[in-house]
Amino acid sequence: MVQARKIRPKFFRKRSQKPFELRQEETGSPPGTLLPSKFPRKEKAKITIIDYSQDEYNESSTYDVEDCAKYRDSKSVTWINIDSVDDVDTLSKLGEYFDVHPLALEDIQDTDQRPKLEEYEDLYLIVTKLLRFRDIIVSEQVSMLLGKKYVITIQMTEEDCFDPIRDRLRSGTGRIRSMGPDYLAYSLMDVLTDEYYPILQIYGDELERLEDTVFKDPRPHMLQKIQRGKRDLLLIRRSILPNREVLGKLMRDDETGLIAESTKRYLRDCQDNTIQISDIIETYRDMSSSLQDLYLSSISHRMNEVMKVLTIIATIFIPLTFITGLYGMNFDAMPELHWEWGYYFSLAAMLLVSLSMLLYFKKKRWL
Amino acid sequence: MVQARKIRPKFFRKRSQKPFELRQEETGSPPGTLLPSKFPRKEKAKITIIDYSQDEYNESSTYDVEDCAKYRDSKSVTWINIDSVDDVDTLSKLGEYFDVHPLALEDIQDTDQRPKLEEYEDLYLIVTKLLRFRDIIVSEQVSMLLGKKYVITIQMTEEDCFDPIRDRLRSGTGRIRSMGPDYLAYSLMDVLTDEYYPILQIYGDELERLEDTVFKDPRPHMLQKIQRGKRDLLLIRRSILPNREVLGKLMRDDETGLIAESTKRYLRDCQDNTIQISDIIETYRDMSSSLQDLYLSSISHRMNEVMKVLTIIATIFIPLTFITGLYGMNFDAMPELHWEWGYYFSLAAMLLVSLSMLLYFKKKRWL
Amino acid sequence: MVQARKIRPKFFRKRSQKPFELRQEETGSPPGTLLPSKFPRKEKAKITIIDYSQDEYNESSTYDVEDCAKYRDSKSVTWINIDSVDDVDTLSKLGEYFDVHPLALEDIQDTDQRPKLEEYEDLYLIVTKLLRFRDIIVSEQVSMLLGKKYVITIQMTEEDCFDPIRDRLRSGTGRIRSMGPDYLAYSLMDVLTDEYYPILQIYGDELERLEDTVFKDPRPHMLQKIQRGKRDLLLIRRSILPNREVLGKLMRDDETGLIAESTKRYLRDCQDNTIQISDIIETYRDMSSSLQDLYLSSISHRMNEVMKVLTIIATIFIPLTFITGLYGMNFDAMPELHWEWGYYFSLAAMLLVSLSMLLYFKKKRWL
Amino acid sequence: MVQARKIRPKFFRKRSQKPFELRQEETGSPPGTLLPSKFPRKEKAKITIIDYSQDEYNESSTYDVEDCAKYRDSKSVTWINIDSVDDVDTLSKLGEYFDVHPLALEDIQDTDQRPKLEEYEDLYLIVTKLLRFRDIIVSEQVSMLLGKKYVITIQMTEEDCFDPIRDRLRSGTGRIRSMGPDYLAYSLMDVLTDEYYPILQIYGDELERLEDTVFKDPRPHMLQKIQRGKRDLLLIRRSILPNREVLGKLMRDDETGLIAESTKRYLRDCQDNTIQISDIIETYRDMSSSLQDLYLSSISHRMNEVMKVLTIIATIFIPLTFITGLYGMNFDAMPELHWEWGYYFSLAAMLLVSLSMLLYFKKKRWL
Amino acid sequence: MVQARKIRPKFFRKRSQKPFELRQEETGSPPGTLLPSKFPRKEKAKITIIDYSQDEYNESSTYDVEDCAKYRDSKSVTWINIDSVDDVDTLSKLGEYFDVHPLALEDIQDTDQRPKLEEYEDLYLIVTKLLRFRDIIVSEQVSMLLGKKYVITIQMTEEDCFDPIRDRLRSGTGRIRSMGPDYLAYSLMDVLTDEYYPILQIYGDELERLEDTVFKDPRPHMLQKIQRGKRDLLLIRRSILPNREVLGKLMRDDETGLIAESTKRYLRDCQDNTIQISDIIETYRDMSSSLQDLYLSSISHRMNEVMKVLTIIATIFIPLTFITGLYGMNFDAMPELHWEWGYYFSLAAMLLVSLSMLLYFKKKRWL
Repeated sequence: MVQARKIRPKFFRKRSQKPFELRQEETGSPPGTLLPSKFPRKEKAKITIIDYSQDEYNESSTYDVEDCAKYRDSKSVTWINIDSVDDVDTLSKLGEYFDVHPLALEDIQDTDQRPKLEEYEDLYLIVTKLLRFRDIIVSEQVSMLLGKKYVITIQMTEEDCFDPIRDRLRSGTGRIRSMGPDYLAYSLMDVLTDEYYPILQIYGDELERLEDTVFKDPRPHMLQKIQRGKRDLLLIRRSILPNREVLGKLMRDDETGLIAESTKRYLRDCQDNTIQISDIIETYRDMSSSLQDLYLSSISHRMNEVMKVLTIIATIFIPLTFITGLYGMNFDAMPELHWEWGYYFSLAAMLLVSLSMLLYFKKKRWL
Repeated sequence: MVQARKIRPKFFRKRSQKPFELRQEETGSPPGTLLPSKFPRKEKAKITIIDYSQDEYNESSTYDVEDCAKYRDSKSVTWINIDSVDDVDTLSKLGEYFDVHPLALEDIQDTDQRPKLEEYEDLYLIVTKLLRFRDIIVSEQVSMLLGKKYVITIQMTEEDCFDPIRDRLRSGTGRIRSMGPDYLAYSLMDVLTDEYYPILQIYGDELERLEDTVFKDPRPHMLQKIQRGKRDLLLIRRSILPNREVLGKLMRDDETGLIAESTKRYLRDCQDNTIQISDIIETYRDMSSSLQDLYLSSISHRMNEVMKVLTIIATIFIPLTFITGLYGMNFDAMPELHWEWGYYFSLAAMLLVSLSMLLYFKKKRWL
Repeated sequence: MVQARKIRPKFFRKRSQKPFELRQEETGSPPGTLLPSKFPRKEKAKITIIDYSQDEYNESSTYDVEDCAKYRDSKSVTWINIDSVDDVDTLSKLGEYFDVHPLALEDIQDTDQRPKLEEYEDLYLIVTKLLRFRDIIVSEQVSMLLGKKYVITIQMTEEDCFDPIRDRLRSGTGRIRSMGPDYLAYSLMDVLTDEYYPILQIYGDELERLEDTVFKDPRPHMLQKIQRGKRDLLLIRRSILPNREVLGKLMRDDETGLIAESTKRYLRDCQDNTIQISDIIETYRDMSSSLQDLYLSSISHRMNEVMKVLTIIATIFIPLTFITGLYGMNFDAMPELHWEWGYYFSLAAMLLVSLSMLLYFKKKRWL
Repeated sequence: MVQARKIRPKFFRKRSQKPFELRQEETGSPPGTLLPSKFPRKEKAKITIIDYSQDEYNESSTYDVEDCAKYRDSKSVTWINIDSVDDVDTLSKLGEYFDVHPLALEDIQDTDQRPKLEEYEDLYLIVTKLLRFRDIIVSEQVSMLLGKKYVITIQMTEEDCFDPIRDRLRSGTGRIRSMGPDYLAYSLMDVLTDEYYPILQIYGDELERLEDTVFKDPRPHMLQKIQRGKRDLLLIRRSILPNREVLGKLMRDDETGLIAESTKRYLRDCQDNTIQISDIIETYRDMSSSLQDLYLSSISHRMNEVMKVLTIIATIFIPLTFITGLYGMNFDAMPELHWEWGYYFSLAAMLLVSLSMLLYFKKKRWL
Repeated sequence: MVQARKIRPKFFRKRSQKPFELRQEETGSPPGTLLPSKFPRKEKAKITIIDYSQDEYNESSTYDVEDCAKYRDSKSVTWINIDSVDDVDTLSKLGEYFDVHPLALEDIQDTDQRPKLEEYEDLYLIVTKLLRFRDIIVSEQVSMLLGKKYVITIQMTEEDCFDPIRDRLRSGTGRIRSMGPDYLAYSLMDVLTDEYYPILQIYGDELERLEDTVFKDPRPHMLQKIQRGKRDLLLIRRSILPNREVLGKLMRDDETGLIAESTKRYLRDCQDNTIQISDIIETYRDMSSSLQDLYLSSISHRMNEVMKVLTIIATIFIPLTFITGLYGMNFDAMPELHWEWGYYFSLAAMLLVSLSMLLYFKKKRWL
């Protein structure tokens, strides 16, 4: 089983990965070259085919990409899901059967892309990111090829978040079965977008927990936590923000006719969610910054408190110690030493001095 | 009685809510689905119908949404006000009677939206925010559906700020009775905008109070107050700023013909108010930032004062204590100890030392 | 006599006003309503009428707004100046005689507006700000109505800065008498803009004075001064910046034909001044920020100096005091105490210790 | 001899001028008025006339502006250079002979302008800045009037940087003699731009020198130096940045036909230099900011070092002094005092205490 | 052999070069002048000619620029590579043979340009940067002239990164041999862009190493490292960012017909890489900033720790020392001194005091 490539480091922990896994492509390999997998897989990529129309629904799965070819121009809508980007053979054959441009295939395989939309003659390539939170944040690339009668999704792992769509397709609830592949693509993007909310919730909860404690009991690891959270939020934003443009382009600049008028309003709704998520991220980053300010100010406040009280204690005793030193001198002629109440006078003097210092501090509001 | 959902946390107090209540929608539910209320209501939503023309005025209220249907194409202008977003039944029927797009209904129910304008064939959906200050800041969503002869407002609670409009409609003062539903919609938005002024006044007063005290007597809770105020202002801005765009779109891009030329100037006036409010918020945020600077600088100034005075005291006594130590030594042969005036000489020496230190500090302007 | 409403707080002093006087309008009053003055005036607004052409010049003043009506369509150019915004009666009559839109009248009366340009059918409303520096900064709104053959200016007080224009009109110097009302409006705006230079000069002088002293002798009130100056500059910028857009609109988008081609170059010149003023303000704000940095760094530098010298003194005496303590012990068997030169040896040891500490500090460059 | 008006303050020294010399124009003087010189000059402005074509070259100088008039429509290209802006008489006559708009003349005389381009019917006014570094930075305004067959340059002093152009004109090297006045204007602007490089070099060198020393040996005056340099760079940028727009306008929006197609590429080249200079300035400002950070961090690092070492010394001796105090007490019954080795035991105890403290500090890495 | 001009200073070390080597051009030299090399070369520039079509491939090298002339209009695609910018003779002859504009030649020779695209009649000049990391960062300018049937590349040194392209041309893999010179130019730019990835990797690794240590063991040189890295990243960005615009212009605004439709998609792919690199740089700069915050906060945290522990020790001993001083006084009448258990009472008192102080510190959480 292939592990999801983790491009997001452990959440609020020590990070061991690089923030960007740089492209593994060997410099200078011709453009449009598919790379042999770094993690050679024994099994081939599993392909799931869902073919549906208003009245019919067929679901099958295969390991042979040739089985898909016939759906290219079928009348019904077909959703082909491929659960690996490392199976070069399957991808390149797919490219042949569906006339996919070599650069599009390269984009599908290069899983460190920004979300983007590429328009080919009668085909859209939509690159998006699926975020998951499994103790660490895992980001997987999900690519979609949207054609006239089909949607092909290529994921990095078997596990995905598309089950609600499958359920709706199976049961025929909602309008999904009566709409075209553009609506299917929208539904998939909508589900991917919805995945961001619970993840942000986790960060929001953590921020609130920090907000409660950072002033009362600031600890050095909190600053690291805050900064790590801030950076994670930045990276999450980078995964979602380009979606806004992708959706905007689909709505405004569609020249292929692949996007029906009626679907555009749904895309708009999905775009609104994207904007809302960006807003939440901005708010959280803002909260993080002010938490950081609070932390620093709390640290310095506590330090000041320590220094102040301690310095005050020290200062009160310094004059007292001077007086004891004075009468500890060994001069032959020190009349006070021989007074009967000399000792008590000196004690009284010390009391007086310390009280007046305390009063002074009180007056200056240092106590 | 339904409580207003509080999306703004307590003002200048400990906040217990999340800054964003994330969408409660279950991930993957089909788009355009109305959610059954989380807080099931026994009573149905109360519907208030105000039907008016230059000469006539009728006001009635009902719990049966069917009563509204006949007003859809009536010649007079009708304002239908619904005081709940949780009554799925009423909303969905309303959608049927007035041909409202399912996504519009979903937008009405999702009360964590940014203010926005959605154009449907012969209908505008305007989503705005009503802010109130009840010890805490309460933000409620007010949605308006603006059709050819009617305005439908959907609020979250019974209580609203529209009474001045009702009074004007009843009494027929101003031009409101002689104008169309677009003018009514403008009037409602204008009243919603006016609600921001007294709330900002509260923040302004608090900032001034802080400005007076933060330098004289800085206390740690002030920093939290300032930061909380800053964040609240940010959130208030987020409630009002998109209005500018909404109003701009209504003025510039109206293709439905729902907005009369004569109303556009009024929308412009309302937009000017929105800009003015944003300006005030910017100024307050600026004041908050410089208050924060003042606070930090005041804290460090006071700490420095404490340290300085105390250190000076300590430093004066250290050489004195050394002298007392010197003549407290028990060497057999210490001639000074046996001088007749030795003790007084030593006292004079101490006086000299402390005076010269004080002079030095004076010269260096440390006193 | 009506006092100018002070919207700018006292300069470099304790501010007692709110940064924004929020609109006094009662929430919900119909748009376009003129408010009865909060400060009821017994006298009516004084109206000054200057009617001129290349060859003729008439100046008169009245309290009856009806006297103005005849100038509306006269061939000569007329400048009507009204010295109050609180005389509702005069304003509303003026509105009638000159066909002024109710919203324009409301804009004239609402003196907390941003500068702006409103285009009405054959009329421009130009809202600008007159700044004055009378120990505190006073901002008054000056509104102009520019029609085909007349300019109406509405001020908040009798006192204005338009005397140079009156002199030029009287004496006929320059081209002003041979040009239309658009040139008159330009001349008025130019004079208003020129008023900003001496005020900025005051801030510039204050900043230079601070720059000289802030490093040598930083005092806590300076930080407040700097921050107050910074905020004032921000507010001044807010009074002048929108002028740029106003002038730009007049030059570019004039569709009324009220602005002659030949006047546009003059407007451009006035706009250049506006930009120059913004530049100066930016520079001053920049200077303020770096002054603030200098202040903070100077404060911390001085504190460090104090701490360093004092700590050095303390540290030198601590080992010495230890030595005196050592030979102040009362052990029966302490051979050194009975040496003949013991006392002098101990003194020498102290000298040695303190010298070597001084050398060490010297070497480490702490002295 | 007239001194250049210094608008840039002394470089890295105490500044005695205002950052902006505000316009000396009396408020309210009619627009387009030439001001009598504040520094009345006895001599008139010297006028240098260079008239050339591919084959001919004539150079003459005069004090009588009438001599220039005949060159206005001559076939050959003429460069008229005037070395003063204070000779009102010469300027106004020039205005007459060459049909210069009064506002253009005012712009020429107002030497605190931003660089800008003004288009008049068949004339361009180009306002640029000549920077020089004479211990202090001197900024002079150089205005150019570009007509069909002539370029008129008006400088503030006799001294200029145009000699390379004169040499090329005299010797006929390059294409300058075969090109029109537009190419001459370009050449002049190119030379003015080139003057910025050596000045920036000075700042770059100073920054590097500071970078070497600021960490090793931070001194308070360095911060002032850095901030002064930063501000100077800002002002230099303000002198050069608008050039970019000026050149862009000449290239793109030329409607007068004064700029030949072939010259535009050269203007583009000059614009590239302008951008490069802005880049360098940005880099230097960036360096300044990080130098400032380094300075502050170095100061605090050094202070921390002082405090740490000194506090450690103090802390080691405090317990020792306590022990000496202990055995300096005068109780009758203190058995240790009478032990034979008591003194040596106490010494050993002190050694032990100080060693263990040192070990503790070592372990905690404070040493 | 000519050394690459190093415009990037040593990486994470002391920098001895200026951040910008300012243009060496003598001020005022006519535009379009080629400069005699500052480092006169004995050998002439080596010229490598690769001429290819789908079926043929010829590779030759020469020192005589005349050999290239014949390829200008040949049917096959020709790649001419020149490995020096200092050989004025070769460059100027090249300019003649290929009709290159003098300003283009000057741009080629001025190696401190920003990347840019210049369009000449039937020729593109593309200026790009080759970054290398040889202990220090070396930036070389690579200029390309893209004509109808040829690409001319001019490099600063013999050594380049184009070998993968040469290999592909030789072996005929990929589509390169069947495409035109535009595809060749794209391939070259793609390889140049790929060179940025490994260099950024170095910075990323360094940042991670710092991130691990900066909190545990902050040292002053780290701050310098971080700031140097930040500046280097800024400069790298400056080398790559303009490429985005260059590629955009080639795609969108090509009016020469030199760029085939099919190549544009490849340019788009290359532009995506440019954007990705900018993203990585932004992330690294962000990481640097938060590292800097961490460093400063860690330094202050450690200092606070030192001060706190030491102050606590000092404070505990101060009252004890006072007590010892008290009973070290020499008054005749001090009853405690003569008590049998006085000494032990005093010891107990000291123990009590120090324990209660410790308890107080514990309660206040200072320990």
